[in-house]
Amino acid sequence: MSNYFLRTLREDPSDAEVTSHRLLVRAGYIRRQAPGIFAWLPIGLRVKAKIEAIVREEMTAAGAHEVHFPALLPREPYEITGRWDEYGDGLFRLKDRKGSDLLLAPTHEEVFTLLVKDLYNSYKDLPLSIYQIQDKYRDEARSRGGLLRGREFTMKDAYSFDYTDAGLDASYQAQRDAYERIFTRLGLEYVIVQADAGAMGGSKSEEFLHPTPVGEDTFVRSAGGYAANIEAFTTVAPPAISFKDLTSAEVFDTPDTPTIQTLVDRANSAHPRPDGREWTAADTLKNVVLALMQPDGSRELVIIGLPGDREVDLKRVEVAFAPAEVEAANETDFARHPGLVKGYIGPWSIAGAVLGEKSATGIRFLVDPRVVDGTEWITGANEPGRHVFGLVAGRDFHADGTVEAAEVRAGDPAPDGSGPVELARGMEIGHVFQLGRKYAEALGLKVLDENGKLVTVTMGSYGIGVTRILATIAELNNDAKGLIWPESVAPFDVHVIATGRDEVVFETSESVVAAIEATGREVLYDDRRGKVSPGVKFGDAELIGVPKIVIVGRGAIEGIVEFWDRRTGEREQVAVADVVSRLG
Amino acid sequence: MSNYFLRTLREDPSDAEVTSHRLLVRAGYIRRQAPGIFAWLPIGLRVKAKIEAIVREEMTAAGAHEVHFPALLPREPYEITGRWDEYGDGLFRLKDRKGSDLLLAPTHEEVFTLLVKDLYNSYKDLPLSIYQIQDKYRDEARSRGGLLRGREFTMKDAYSFDYTDAGLDASYQAQRDAYERIFTRLGLEYVIVQADAGAMGGSKSEEFLHPTPVGEDTFVRSAGGYAANIEAFTTVAPPAISFKDLTSAEVFDTPDTPTIQTLVDRANSAHPRPDGREWTAADTLKNVVLALMQPDGSRELVIIGLPGDREVDLKRVEVAFAPAEVEAANETDFARHPGLVKGYIGPWSIAGAVLGEKSATGIRFLVDPRVVDGTEWITGANEPGRHVFGLVAGRDFHADGTVEAAEVRAGDPAPDGSGPVELARGMEIGHVFQLGRKYAEALGLKVLDENGKLVTVTMGSYGIGVTRILATIAELNNDAKGLIWPESVAPFDVHVIATGRDEVVFETSESVVAAIEATGREVLYDDRRGKVSPGVKFGDAELIGVPKIVIVGRGAIEGIVEFWDRRTGEREQVAVADVVSRLG
Repeated sequence: MSNYFLRTLREDPSDAEVTSHRLLVRAGYIRRQAPGIFAWLPIGLRVKAKIEAIVREEMTAAGAHEVHFPALLPREPYEITGRWDEYGDGLFRLKDRKGSDLLLAPTHEEVFTLLVKDLYNSYKDLPLSIYQIQDKYRDEARSRGGLLRGREFTMKDAYSFDYTDAGLDASYQAQRDAYERIFTRLGLEYVIVQADAGAMGGSKSEEFLHPTPVGEDTFVRSAGGYAANIEAFTTVAPPAISFKDLTSAEVFDTPDTPTIQTLVDRANSAHPRPDGREWTAADTLKNVVLALMQPDGSRELVIIGLPGDREVDLKRVEVAFAPAEVEAANETDFARHPGLVKGYIGPWSIAGAVLGEKSATGIRFLVDPRVVDGTEWITGANEPGRHVFGLVAGRDFHADGTVEAAEVRAGDPAPDGSGPVELARGMEIGHVFQLGRKYAEALGLKVLDENGKLVTVTMGSYGIGVTRILATIAELNNDAKGLIWPESVAPFDVHVIATGRDEVVFETSESVVAAIEATGREVLYDDRRGKVSPGVKFGDAELIGVPKIVIVGRGAIEGIVEFWDRRTGEREQVAVADVVSRLG
Repeated sequence: MSNYFLRTLREDPSDAEVTSHRLLVRAGYIRRQAPGIFAWLPIGLRVKAKIEAIVREEMTAAGAHEVHFPALLPREPYEITGRWDEYGDGLFRLKDRKGSDLLLAPTHEEVFTLLVKDLYNSYKDLPLSIYQIQDKYRDEARSRGGLLRGREFTMKDAYSFDYTDAGLDASYQAQRDAYERIFTRLGLEYVIVQADAGAMGGSKSEEFLHPTPVGEDTFVRSAGGYAANIEAFTTVAPPAISFKDLTSAEVFDTPDTPTIQTLVDRANSAHPRPDGREWTAADTLKNVVLALMQPDGSRELVIIGLPGDREVDLKRVEVAFAPAEVEAANETDFARHPGLVKGYIGPWSIAGAVLGEKSATGIRFLVDPRVVDGTEWITGANEPGRHVFGLVAGRDFHADGTVEAAEVRAGDPAPDGSGPVELARGMEIGHVFQLGRKYAEALGLKVLDENGKLVTVTMGSYGIGVTRILATIAELNNDAKGLIWPESVAPFDVHVIATGRDEVVFETSESVVAAIEATGREVLYDDRRGKVSPGVKFGDAELIGVPKIVIVGRGAIEGIVEFWDRRTGEREQVAVADVVSRLG
């Protein structure tokens, strides 16, 4: 350490919002260059290389071949698949000196597809899985959490190519199995959740989430084994109800109902149900007007009807309408549609249908899946100060379809019947994805099958965020004094600290270092002399977080050193001759 | 090879201008993505990794620590050093979603300087050498030669930090020695030439050039050991001559002198020298008007006077005036300066000095170093159809300075007195550079010295083009049939080819592969069955270029295989049991 390029810092970085960021900077693993953009210092690079080596080994075991694509790519392939526009502001775009459009690739589906198209043409060439470990770029609106969401980050992205659906299933499973092995080796707890196909345009999709309160994703899981990303959760629709026993809807003046509860109270007194069940907030139909902004620049209004006891979950809405961006309708939007009475919007008015398939507003009206035929609702009457009570879906109004827009709540039933779900936070650390034929279709990747017929190839896409995994491991393995690396990814296997000024201490330290290195282990040797106190050295060791520490001090004269377990904090005296065997 | 991601191509790529590009694409090492931007296929990545491993080992041996910086960097540090502008169109610039300026780094002096400034503050921390192996970006006007000049390329760039000049010399020497070891291990012939400090703004600078006709650089060397990049060559000025024996200059009408030779003939008849020496083309003074375009957008004219038997070398001129770009003066420039009579420009006219220190044109007049006091010249008289003969430098005209603008020719004397030089072509494969204090000064990198005084750090910068080296090795090691890798960087150590359909062939092949792999060697095994003929397999092996090939054919029944040396073409029968020992 006397000449190693390593400096620990006394102060926390001012911009650090999460523990991993704070500790990785303070302990000298990374340095910030720009928002979401980091440089790797020597010990950081060592940890990163160890994670990459594990990923590489498991990719090889899964039969995938390593390639390496440039980060800087031409626009054309991304134009063909629509992603040049779909990525919106998240894509770093630039021009070269000749004015040609280029991008910094956020992910490489297009060019992998074109590569295989270039080189392969027969079913005999398949299956094929190829991958790279490469730096990717996304212009995140808010790059927070240090390495957890960087704008430049290292990712392993693999792509599989098959000519049958069964082949894709097998390739997908091989990557999924490899991911399980990788996370197990890294000591990272994970939950595999169903994920939304989203902007990638594929079919089956699962995320590997590490459960952690600092995670950016919310997921749900049931005791019966169901697990899904909140965006992929599907609402269980109740059975339809016969119209037979339902009363007619009635319009009421509702002047003093500033809250949903006051409105519900009013309904219970003015329009009680025949069967005596009380109206509740879940029986109100809230109609929310949203504007969808498509990548081509067009703006469309849509109205979502959902139970009044639930909020719209914008993340779920964005997935439902991807690649459009979604925002609340503004005054201009309302001014264009005088039929919509703000605060009193409902699918029906005395004049007839206001929203839904038979209306003339032209605005799409989508409802929560719970709004099935025969359900009765308290909702706006499209007149200021008036509501309609007992409006029946399928009888009094008809939506244009359903949408998964409402928030998911603990206790909601899992769609597979495995019981109520609970909500948790997780950090996405891996993603496996059946793209299907979208990219191959768009870019013309076909092969000849056994019968000499051209068939479109079906693909999978599989990503692991290397730098994010590193941060997640750091997030999970630390205490008040610093990092505590798992052995599989620690920058060094052993940290040897020489304390004191006697020459025997340094001689003993050097022989201990040599003995440990002779076993193939890597050692960080704190050989600093002069004014560096034992306390500073211990503090640095705790901050840096090598799991096994050997302290060589005054005991060296008697051939005794101290073994210090960074995780448990236990210290134990060991004879110099026994140090190597004590390491296990 | 039956399931390895490797395809050789029958056709040469249409855009390949050099052998390495043609063969690396055809043999399945790389694929073009955009001009100057390539993807690496599995065997290409293996060769690249081997070169990187050698570079890494020698950097470690030289005491340098590995770090890794992002490619995407903020504008500010490059703005402070002036390189944001100086790089001109060669820099890839972009903006993020918030409008902040970013760049794809062409080289990392600024951020390495800032990193050390961040972490270090004492002379005790120095010397320090840190490096990275990283992808760099330059928007080359013409990206030709495949990997020889890419727009995205992999480079090892190291930076040294010292607080004394002697320290810098030592750090520089350590990197220079490491480079010699690297090129020796790679089997790459090299010449170390003096290079111009150029746009990097430093002092001592040397390039490692690999002599090759496809090289983009011209260099000179003398039998006595002098070697320099053509841009760094300095002209030997002759001794000044006494004015005493010189005659007066005379102006003549020179109507029929369309060429230099006719003009010289005219001088020999009209104005013979007193000592009888003939006038030659080397005695004519050609005055070339150039426009310098500075990075700040300003345009300045400069006139260069040089012997008429030499052309202006634009590469040398560009270095002389860096960071300005240089072009010939245009009609607008001449219109602004009516005193300049096109075709008859000279430093003097009957009216007096036209160019040089005492003139009023305001245009800088620089001369070739050969234009010393007392030299006599035939030059324009600044009147249409008239020349002046015997105009004496230092007596009749005075320049504003000298400039290295004239072409260098074989036979010119080396500046160190080591004899005449010869010219050769070379490919730059490494560059070592004493930056001095330029970057540390600009960015405020100071440390406390032994006396507690703040001193500015002095730096070195050291680059090796990894991908260019790979291409240079390929350029050097091939024949009509394909590549022939040196063992140190070959993608595999041995290529085993199974030919024929007998099961014994494949059984023998597999045991041969296992025996070779057991020695730690890497094997490419051509196990393709079916319609792939021995001829196709041999052709692929020759194209791919693994240096040692083992052919397993019908002889397998008798336990005999063939050893094939790819470089010499020799084939030799070897008993299966002797294969490993035959590999050496």
